[in-house]
Amino acid sequence: MAPAPPFVPPEGGTPNRSATCNRRRKGTDDSAPPVVIGSHLDTQVNGGRYDGIVGVLAGLEVVRALNERGVATRRPIEVVDWTNEEGARFSPPMIAAGAFAGVYAVDWVLDRRDDDGRRFGDELARIGYAGAAPVGGRTLDSYFELHIEQGPLLDAKGVDVGVVTHGYTAHGFIVEISGETAHTGPWPMDKRRNALVGASMLAVAAHDIGWKYHPTGGKGTAARIVAWPNKPGILSDWAQFTGDLRHEDPASADAMLADFHAAMRDAARRANVEMRVIDQWRWNADLFDTECVALVRDTARRLGYPSLDLPSQAGHDAYHVARVAPTAMVFSPCRDGITHNNREHADLERTVPAVNVLANAVLARANR
Amino acid sequence: MAPAPPFVPPEGGTPNRSATCNRRRKGTDDSAPPVVIGSHLDTQVNGGRYDGIVGVLAGLEVVRALNERGVATRRPIEVVDWTNEEGARFSPPMIAAGAFAGVYAVDWVLDRRDDDGRRFGDELARIGYAGAAPVGGRTLDSYFELHIEQGPLLDAKGVDVGVVTHGYTAHGFIVEISGETAHTGPWPMDKRRNALVGASMLAVAAHDIGWKYHPTGGKGTAARIVAWPNKPGILSDWAQFTGDLRHEDPASADAMLADFHAAMRDAARRANVEMRVIDQWRWNADLFDTECVALVRDTARRLGYPSLDLPSQAGHDAYHVARVAPTAMVFSPCRDGITHNNREHADLERTVPAVNVLANAVLARANR
Repeated sequence: MAPAPPFVPPEGGTPNRSATCNRRRKGTDDSAPPVVIGSHLDTQVNGGRYDGIVGVLAGLEVVRALNERGVATRRPIEVVDWTNEEGARFSPPMIAAGAFAGVYAVDWVLDRRDDDGRRFGDELARIGYAGAAPVGGRTLDSYFELHIEQGPLLDAKGVDVGVVTHGYTAHGFIVEISGETAHTGPWPMDKRRNALVGASMLAVAAHDIGWKYHPTGGKGTAARIVAWPNKPGILSDWAQFTGDLRHEDPASADAMLADFHAAMRDAARRANVEMRVIDQWRWNADLFDTECVALVRDTARRLGYPSLDLPSQAGHDAYHVARVAPTAMVFSPCRDGITHNNREHADLERTVPAVNVLANAVLARANR
Repeated sequence: MAPAPPFVPPEGGTPNRSATCNRRRKGTDDSAPPVVIGSHLDTQVNGGRYDGIVGVLAGLEVVRALNERGVATRRPIEVVDWTNEEGARFSPPMIAAGAFAGVYAVDWVLDRRDDDGRRFGDELARIGYAGAAPVGGRTLDSYFELHIEQGPLLDAKGVDVGVVTHGYTAHGFIVEISGETAHTGPWPMDKRRNALVGASMLAVAAHDIGWKYHPTGGKGTAARIVAWPNKPGILSDWAQFTGDLRHEDPASADAMLADFHAAMRDAARRANVEMRVIDQWRWNADLFDTECVALVRDTARRLGYPSLDLPSQAGHDAYHVARVAPTAMVFSPCRDGITHNNREHADLERTVPAVNVLANAVLARANR
């Protein structure tokens, strides 16, 4: 592998050897609201090594570079690793950023359970991650998040800096299905109340709705089905279905959700089961801060990097943080847009421009 | 609860105090092929307390009654509890009876794995059930199995003895589905290869095929879906679907299976995944022995019990044993035909007539 291109030194500032790389780097006016850089380290079980991780490492790299060059900033700089961004173990995704931004109550978050029934709060305590600091309620100067694009545009166009202007609207949900156990042999079709059939109908419906909106870029996903007893010879009396629907146009995303609710009513009737949405979440990125987004774009231009304005198709912690702080995101390319797959790959060389944009944008805000 | 009606003493025979209730009751001509009574003790996780269990207890009761009355028989009488009849943990169902009858190779059976990857043979050894005796290859005089009907006919008609004349044909199968993981957000519909969607389409297809054949009594079941990673935020690259299709008419059952194979091809195309049948089984009960079935019917008449000739809608160990020994089944009623459900119930009083028929039929064969 070729060596990484040289880091472009941020401009301005004076030496400050006392700053550390440990979560918070002091500012010369240390009571000023901080500039925060964040992303996440958790992954999908078959996920890659870049989704989220590049963003946290980039934050550390920015602080390290400032330290090595002895660059002081007026505002403190903080690096954050948001817990459970993926939602792979605990639903919903982006749960810690949501708690920080007041989207979810902290007690509600701590009481979330994984498929084995273990509590989020208990598991945080068990691994030593349950800190004493209050969640949220602090003023931030701004929040910046670098992330691999998780889409094909930057890679295909050979552009290394993406300026995220908005995000797809996503509707996620967990539906609980209740039926009744019976024998798969003698029990007649017109008496059956197979919860697994109801869940399967929802999975097919989510997929079909995705196809219906495919011409305008919509996606519909069947992500998870669990059922009980879920064994040969017996009809299941309980199931859960987790799915999501996404579209760049918020009105179309809402129309997809309405289609799904109609499909739910139809499936409940056809499978002769009860269905209930026990969890739902919605996000989009229409809250990004115009000034911060412009700063990212202008910084790329100033550093001589071609950039591309583009939407984010995935969910990010930044969507929630944007509710409580001026926020922007910078994307770097990933090969063929492949992600949540162990073939996910990002070239170190192609990541450096976005990291340099992040460093210089953060520095500008930190000296404001 | 009212006391059980008195046991009708079997006729004939002389005292034989040395006989034991432990698996095998000696005959006066102990080298003669035995009469075997069997069923199973395993249940579904939400199953009742009668399915299979009544048949094993009935076998023990027959031997106990003969012992208490000192009735000797020419042939030995054996009681067998077949392992894993339900197939709830290891596929396929009726696996031990299948091995005994040579339908499945013993090594293949011992190598079956549960959903946690544990081997059938290892688990038998762990719980002390891996005996040293050879499997099958023995001559039996005859095999009788008493079972709750698992259907509504006897209960509805107030008849306590069912003479099983034939069985529904059942096709069971496990389909493995292969796709590719990807992000549920940016990955476009036309690139998706979601194994969970493929499995769900099969589940809906099995159910729909059941409804198509419902007018003639057919049933189609989606019993089990497992997928991986099966988590929010990611498309699954692997899934399994377990289902079955049943019909009283073997040609219709075969037509249902052909429908399912067509649905598989369609689902593989629509979900853009690969599908492969990794396991399949078929059974019916067209092999019951005319003479043994007549003996059950005649014994009921002789004892003064009204009886009903009827088909079996569920699978039973007897179906496999019938390949290697003259076989018949006797049914006793269960409330409303409810089974594989913890509301399953059989009245002790209404079970006694079938147990008496079993006892006297076995005695007749044992003195042949």
